[in-house]
Amino acid sequence: MLTTLPDLAPKTLLASYRDGTLAPRELIDALREKAKALNEQYRAFIHILDAEETEPYLLRLGATDDRTLPLYGIPFAVKDNIDLAGIPTTAACPAFAYTPDESATVVRRIIELGGIPVAKTNLDQFATGLNGTRSPYGVCRNSVLPDYPSGGSSSGSAVAVALGVASFALGTDTAGSGRIPAAYNNLVGLKATRGLISTHGVVPACRTLDCTTLLTASASQASMLFSLLARFDPADDYSRKNPQWNGSTAFGRIRPGFRFGVPQTLDFAGRSEDEALFAQAVARLETMGGLAVPIDLSPFLDAAKLLYEGPWIAERHLVVQDLLTRDPEAILPVIRAVLDAAPEYSAADMFSAVYRLQHIKAECDAVMNGLDCVLTPAMPRPVTLAELQEQPVAANSLLGVYTNFMNLLDYAAVAVPSAFIANGLPWGVTIFGRAFTDQYLLSIADAFQRTSGLPLVGGQTLEPAVTGRVATNDRARIVVCGAHLDGLTLNWQLLDRGGRLVSVTRTAPCYCFYALAGDPPLRPGLVRCEDGGQAIEVEVWELPSSELGSFLTQIPAPLGLGKVELADGTFETGFICEGFVLSSARDITATGGWRAWLASEDLSTTPA
Amino acid sequence: MLTTLPDLAPKTLLASYRDGTLAPRELIDALREKAKALNEQYRAFIHILDAEETEPYLLRLGATDDRTLPLYGIPFAVKDNIDLAGIPTTAACPAFAYTPDESATVVRRIIELGGIPVAKTNLDQFATGLNGTRSPYGVCRNSVLPDYPSGGSSSGSAVAVALGVASFALGTDTAGSGRIPAAYNNLVGLKATRGLISTHGVVPACRTLDCTTLLTASASQASMLFSLLARFDPADDYSRKNPQWNGSTAFGRIRPGFRFGVPQTLDFAGRSEDEALFAQAVARLETMGGLAVPIDLSPFLDAAKLLYEGPWIAERHLVVQDLLTRDPEAILPVIRAVLDAAPEYSAADMFSAVYRLQHIKAECDAVMNGLDCVLTPAMPRPVTLAELQEQPVAANSLLGVYTNFMNLLDYAAVAVPSAFIANGLPWGVTIFGRAFTDQYLLSIADAFQRTSGLPLVGGQTLEPAVTGRVATNDRARIVVCGAHLDGLTLNWQLLDRGGRLVSVTRTAPCYCFYALAGDPPLRPGLVRCEDGGQAIEVEVWELPSSELGSFLTQIPAPLGLGKVELADGTFETGFICEGFVLSSARDITATGGWRAWLASEDLSTTPA
Repeated sequence: MLTTLPDLAPKTLLASYRDGTLAPRELIDALREKAKALNEQYRAFIHILDAEETEPYLLRLGATDDRTLPLYGIPFAVKDNIDLAGIPTTAACPAFAYTPDESATVVRRIIELGGIPVAKTNLDQFATGLNGTRSPYGVCRNSVLPDYPSGGSSSGSAVAVALGVASFALGTDTAGSGRIPAAYNNLVGLKATRGLISTHGVVPACRTLDCTTLLTASASQASMLFSLLARFDPADDYSRKNPQWNGSTAFGRIRPGFRFGVPQTLDFAGRSEDEALFAQAVARLETMGGLAVPIDLSPFLDAAKLLYEGPWIAERHLVVQDLLTRDPEAILPVIRAVLDAAPEYSAADMFSAVYRLQHIKAECDAVMNGLDCVLTPAMPRPVTLAELQEQPVAANSLLGVYTNFMNLLDYAAVAVPSAFIANGLPWGVTIFGRAFTDQYLLSIADAFQRTSGLPLVGGQTLEPAVTGRVATNDRARIVVCGAHLDGLTLNWQLLDRGGRLVSVTRTAPCYCFYALAGDPPLRPGLVRCEDGGQAIEVEVWELPSSELGSFLTQIPAPLGLGKVELADGTFETGFICEGFVLSSARDITATGGWRAWLASEDLSTTPA
Repeated sequence: MLTTLPDLAPKTLLASYRDGTLAPRELIDALREKAKALNEQYRAFIHILDAEETEPYLLRLGATDDRTLPLYGIPFAVKDNIDLAGIPTTAACPAFAYTPDESATVVRRIIELGGIPVAKTNLDQFATGLNGTRSPYGVCRNSVLPDYPSGGSSSGSAVAVALGVASFALGTDTAGSGRIPAAYNNLVGLKATRGLISTHGVVPACRTLDCTTLLTASASQASMLFSLLARFDPADDYSRKNPQWNGSTAFGRIRPGFRFGVPQTLDFAGRSEDEALFAQAVARLETMGGLAVPIDLSPFLDAAKLLYEGPWIAERHLVVQDLLTRDPEAILPVIRAVLDAAPEYSAADMFSAVYRLQHIKAECDAVMNGLDCVLTPAMPRPVTLAELQEQPVAANSLLGVYTNFMNLLDYAAVAVPSAFIANGLPWGVTIFGRAFTDQYLLSIADAFQRTSGLPLVGGQTLEPAVTGRVATNDRARIVVCGAHLDGLTLNWQLLDRGGRLVSVTRTAPCYCFYALAGDPPLRPGLVRCEDGGQAIEVEVWELPSSELGSFLTQIPAPLGLGKVELADGTFETGFICEGFVLSSARDITATGGWRAWLASEDLSTTPA
């Protein structure tokens, strides 16, 4: 039996497995004992897998002995509303429990990649709650301060990672259930874009909104896991394909000048300490090169109201209606009270709410389109166990103010640790953005963690930063040097695609520049050259990556899009020119740029 | 007063206005008289604009006198559930009528572009029906055979164009209301992708599904209008931005080899003539170079059932519930009967239906992803006025079998004339495809019309075909010549993006080919050259256009994507190479291609 446990960062475990200083079996055995010992106090686990139950996974690992599996021997915990084959799924309601023959798609995939499940974790019953106290399996306590709750509904999953019983854990998030417990326990909580991580085999809360979430010590771990687990799942009707600019290669350096929204007014429920911590977080993003853009959060908050005061509750009701009829006492009174409103809503109410949501989403999307992400506190302020006991509904609701709107609006969000409050409790922020920008948000969260220098849970340390890669989001940059320049003949092709001028700059001093022969519109050729090159004036534009393909396909020969080196030494996608036309072209390198050449030829007002 | 009217094709009218042989005012006056004369028999119009009412539009036109306006003096008709400022909007229910101060967004735009509204047209009350008989303003008769209905609910709009009272007309389509009357009257009916043509100022039927539609004599006219009218409208919460590969430049030659789905089994309600006409239509698409792919239509038909047997009826109910309470007799009995089911549906029913739709849509999308479009009959068979009188619901339902599913599934569709049945009645087909492929579908419909050689309504003739342009859809082609070739090192970048190998071919015989210096993966340079070029082996792949941008941005210098000339003389987007690296590269032109070179160097099994 292991006497001292290593930190559970995947990189640590994989290295120890590789060099033979650790075997998966001894780690899993030790974690089992640790989980048992901790559960008395923390109530994090509904079921801790015994030796017989983990044996097939260990045997499987031994049989393949494929040490290149990215999750080889990595222990993980599973929220008990997600199926693990052969173990009851309770959703924290014993009367609801069933034992699935198959694991949820995401669990199966983790196991295929080498992961070992260690426990099913406690949750707010039917994932209805944000605090961790709503369970017949006990009040799940905070991993740092026992007077505070774990947060929920993915309560035990957060505590399992925070206390070093699992390297990472699966949770779910319909209105904040993955992010609130992350913030309470110094963890990263990724509510990925809806449909990217399969929910097949997950007990629904609101099926149209549910997301499977990842709870990890660091954003870089979440990024690695996301790139492995975000897969289209034909068994999940709500599954969506992740556009490839969001694949694993997206992780890297953040371009300076990124625009992050900061709500003009925020409610910290009276706590000035939280307000100061948030200001610190804003300053940190600015240090990272971000540009704070004040935004009005009220339409976002309107969406949240719709979720809790509208007909979506009927979705939760659908899941338990049989049980509710058969054995109402089997459901906690606080959950029953929530569900009571459901039968009153009609299809007409539903459509009215859908119209209202559509209106709100149009408003919110307009805000989001001008930004790369938005920063908010993870919650207005943490609440205590005592407060939750006194006001089980109001105190719970307070926690969700900055999380509730996300799923309805179809955004991606990452909760990331930002500070510790004076009493020692972890304090987090949320970084959210447009659907499918998950990897970009994780890159920002990663840089944020590096800048903050906070300790990670369980003595883990951050992996070295990835350099030489630029974090990409759903916007692409393009260097233009001719008729696409601001205000010139073909500039509309960029504007029509939502293009935005980012900067006016020059290339590295190694380009020759030509006016190509042929009919109007006049076209330039930007050609990297060994000798005689200069710095040529160019503009950098940004447009939705999904629109870049249509822009490219209409560019005629001899032009194309390749990589152009800019004055600062970075390479950006931009216009290049095939060499075969240069013999008939006019060398205009000396003019230094297209506008200067147009002016010198008196063509600037008639660019045809 | 004009004694003989010209044909109303926009090109004809614009030419006549330009050469001074016609003035807008005299045309509009003549059309007014014609409309009045026809209305006795056809009941196409609820309100024909009098001279005073058209005067402001004519004055406006005279004041700008901008003959370059694309719709200068073009007369159009407006379905009477779409607002025209100052004229009552009735939705074919006098008790519901209101007089709007402003025109619907789409109407306002047409007017800004020079169009002149001539009439508000008859419809099935509240756009609830597919036949044209459900109106207190009279039974709208078919423009060719008086024993048949006009089709509906955009009844009068179709008849107005078919009889030459308007160049085109606006309709609406929630379950087929734009396509059925098109098919009945030898017209093109475009049900554009939801949200592309604004519905602001349109009386909702089912607000989540409604589309504003275009009724025209030809697909090329619909394409021209669509490119002018598909605009994001901030006033319409359901408005969506049209990705730019769907702009007006998309119209052009159809690439041979396009894949069109043909349902394996179809219901023609016992009419073998319709079955034969459909086989003829399939053959016509094959003549155009299409590849017929048998598909199972049953999941599509399942979606249709959901619309009529499910809670979407609550949306229609929401629109009229006030009137229904206040004055139920003001609503036609047949419409009231349809609406009666609505109050029974709960929000839970709604969610259950939404889940079911999501499941069906996932199935249908999987089918659509392998195709460029699908061909169906416009309707199983035309029904007569006598049949409608006898069975007002069943006969109406029959008409919608091949149209009902489209809006729920978020597809774009074009009804296009295909033949005349022996008794002289027009007979049409529907070509449908993925959301946002409207212009591509119209290009196919245009080629279909040219191949069929049917007469157009009102003596119109087709404009000359557009040559030199290729119709683009939401798939882009890319020519690869190195590590992206099928099965080689980087091929996964195409596969991950949904790439599909289209053909293995060669370039035009004017390319030099290099192995570039540098670290693995080994990279080729395909360079067009003046001398010494050869035909190089390449592959053409196809991938979603929206994924091409992310593919492009990760290509490092000196490579890029430009245009590559293939053996058949066409140019496709493909890999090109900057010239500055060639001095350090190895000329491998003589090998004829990357695979041959790898084999010659014995690198084929270890391409790093």
